[in-house]
Amino acid sequence: MNDPLLSRFYGVIPAGGTGTRLWPLSRAAAPKFLHDLTGSGSTLIRATYDRLVPLAGNRIMVVTGEAHGTAVTAQLPELSAADLVLESEPKDSAAAIGLAAAILFRRDPETIMGSFAADQVIGPVEVFQEAVREAVHAAATGKIVTIGIEPTYPSTGFGYIRCGESLGVVGAEHAQNVVEFVEKPDEDVAKDYVDSGEYLWNAGMFVAPVALMLQHLRENEPELAAGVEKIAAAWDTDQRDAVTAAVWPTLPKTAIDYAVAEPAAAAGDVAVVPGKFTWDDVGDFAALGRLNPASDAGGMTVMGDGARVYVDDANGIVVSDTRRVIALIGIKDVVVVDTPDALLVTTKDHAQQVKGAVEALKAHGEVDVL
Amino acid sequence: MNDPLLSRFYGVIPAGGTGTRLWPLSRAAAPKFLHDLTGSGSTLIRATYDRLVPLAGNRIMVVTGEAHGTAVTAQLPELSAADLVLESEPKDSAAAIGLAAAILFRRDPETIMGSFAADQVIGPVEVFQEAVREAVHAAATGKIVTIGIEPTYPSTGFGYIRCGESLGVVGAEHAQNVVEFVEKPDEDVAKDYVDSGEYLWNAGMFVAPVALMLQHLRENEPELAAGVEKIAAAWDTDQRDAVTAAVWPTLPKTAIDYAVAEPAAAAGDVAVVPGKFTWDDVGDFAALGRLNPASDAGGMTVMGDGARVYVDDANGIVVSDTRRVIALIGIKDVVVVDTPDALLVTTKDHAQQVKGAVEALKAHGEVDVL
Repeated sequence: MNDPLLSRFYGVIPAGGTGTRLWPLSRAAAPKFLHDLTGSGSTLIRATYDRLVPLAGNRIMVVTGEAHGTAVTAQLPELSAADLVLESEPKDSAAAIGLAAAILFRRDPETIMGSFAADQVIGPVEVFQEAVREAVHAAATGKIVTIGIEPTYPSTGFGYIRCGESLGVVGAEHAQNVVEFVEKPDEDVAKDYVDSGEYLWNAGMFVAPVALMLQHLRENEPELAAGVEKIAAAWDTDQRDAVTAAVWPTLPKTAIDYAVAEPAAAAGDVAVVPGKFTWDDVGDFAALGRLNPASDAGGMTVMGDGARVYVDDANGIVVSDTRRVIALIGIKDVVVVDTPDALLVTTKDHAQQVKGAVEALKAHGEVDVL
Repeated sequence: MNDPLLSRFYGVIPAGGTGTRLWPLSRAAAPKFLHDLTGSGSTLIRATYDRLVPLAGNRIMVVTGEAHGTAVTAQLPELSAADLVLESEPKDSAAAIGLAAAILFRRDPETIMGSFAADQVIGPVEVFQEAVREAVHAAATGKIVTIGIEPTYPSTGFGYIRCGESLGVVGAEHAQNVVEFVEKPDEDVAKDYVDSGEYLWNAGMFVAPVALMLQHLRENEPELAAGVEKIAAAWDTDQRDAVTAAVWPTLPKTAIDYAVAEPAAAAGDVAVVPGKFTWDDVGDFAALGRLNPASDAGGMTVMGDGARVYVDDANGIVVSDTRRVIALIGIKDVVVVDTPDALLVTTKDHAQQVKGAVEALKAHGEVDVL
């Protein structure tokens, strides 16, 4: 994109979480973002990276678990070691995004970072990119800018953003102040939110001057801020690994929403750009079914290159990660996920309960398949 | 059993059919009768053999497909080669039972044979054996005697036997004449049958003098009778294999019901002994669920030594023939059969449709898993 302000922009991709509700497709060793969940030919993290390139060029940083370093590098061969933060243990989003902000601040205090999770599905990419471009302009006025998704239904699975008056920024015509962030509502409240037209879904996307991110982090989580700044001071030196190894495990574990976004909103420092693109965090197998068209007239979505599926009077989604023949007869909205060492059979209505299954399997010591 | 008439008795076990409705547990290469479907520790054919030993000693003949010779011998090491008929191609029940009758007739024309399919589940065995003993006595008066099962519900999946007046035979107090065999009825008719008290289920069990069997076979299927008698003449000689190989493929393919039982009933030559034992032909996975108690309070039956099954708000039956973890969430009456190369997911209500799946897989060339 041709916009001089983008020279200050740096993309950050937090790639965490195992996507428990997508077990046994998504695993601790092969989380959601390392899968192609849309049949596009790209893994979610590769697609996330590619969406940012027109805005950031190769100025993109990834924060992920140590176990995924090799897989991420294989997906993103152009990523330099200095732009790959490997967490020795998960510390939630405030540490991940805070460390990225601190590193980028030391490289250039004028940087405007944009943080986008590695496991979201977005389209069309041009509409997303235009929203980010506006967000960068709004951020340059001294705001933490989130991109809110226009709700398509009264979801109880997402947090919401209450929008205020227009920010009136040239180059960010759609940017508005954020009145508040609200937690996942119940169904009635969600309906009121959607009907009011004042609320957007919180997709966890933040575009902000790194200086402002760090300022709020220092105010709300001084210990965390001091820790990430200590690592950042060593990052682009030969002390990177030693200092990171010493400090990272000591960092408090908290979400960026509590550490920065909500207090900053209360302080009037947060704006929002509405995103008119489609957005899905592929939260469960029902979502996977929505994202992938049915393979037959009966409404069965079949995923998997080697799938050998026979369907009689059934619909839903089958994910086949084996060469086994799968016969499905007479179940509506079925979800079948067939992998070499684990099999899930449920329905779309129960897609959220998959998380409970994973927890139970863990409690029963069946850790080899998690 | 201590009954002199039993010295004329010879058991015959037709072990045919692949149990298509139990796919992918039952396969062409490993049909139903080679499985332990009740958790008893015995395969169905072994249990069938053991039920006959107190009546027949080692005077038991098995008729099965060539492909199963080795497996049957492994199950029944005491079976002599002269009592194992291997079909080079399936020719339906008239040829199988007719050949057994012809061989046994040549050995001893006074023989009373009793034919019992290899894939039925029966209990208590003593009640079954007492019914067979009565049937032998009734047969000795010159009757083809079937053992009819007292219906426990108005099944539309079985044929019925209409009973007439008592035969009045000493030693076979419960034997009655058979008025007619009737085909599988619709539900209303089945209900009338059961309410009338005059009808029994036809379980395909026949006890009869081999001479009488052959007489009816000659009358109704002269070509078939001539063929099996030709093989029988060579059976206990060194020409057995050569003559069998030459003649068997030329035999007409028909069921014993049409070739013998129904015309014999019309001629007044058929009697029935009511069987007060429980009986199941394990026709589909719903039957398998009935035969095997639930493994948990929620009503899920889990079969398979190495099963690793997690159940949440689901019931039905899981057959696990792998070491994979299986998670089942939120499906009532589910049927899951997990084998190394094929997976079936359906419900008990759709258990009969499994046959259609197998036919469709065959039509699509997926023969490696059939």
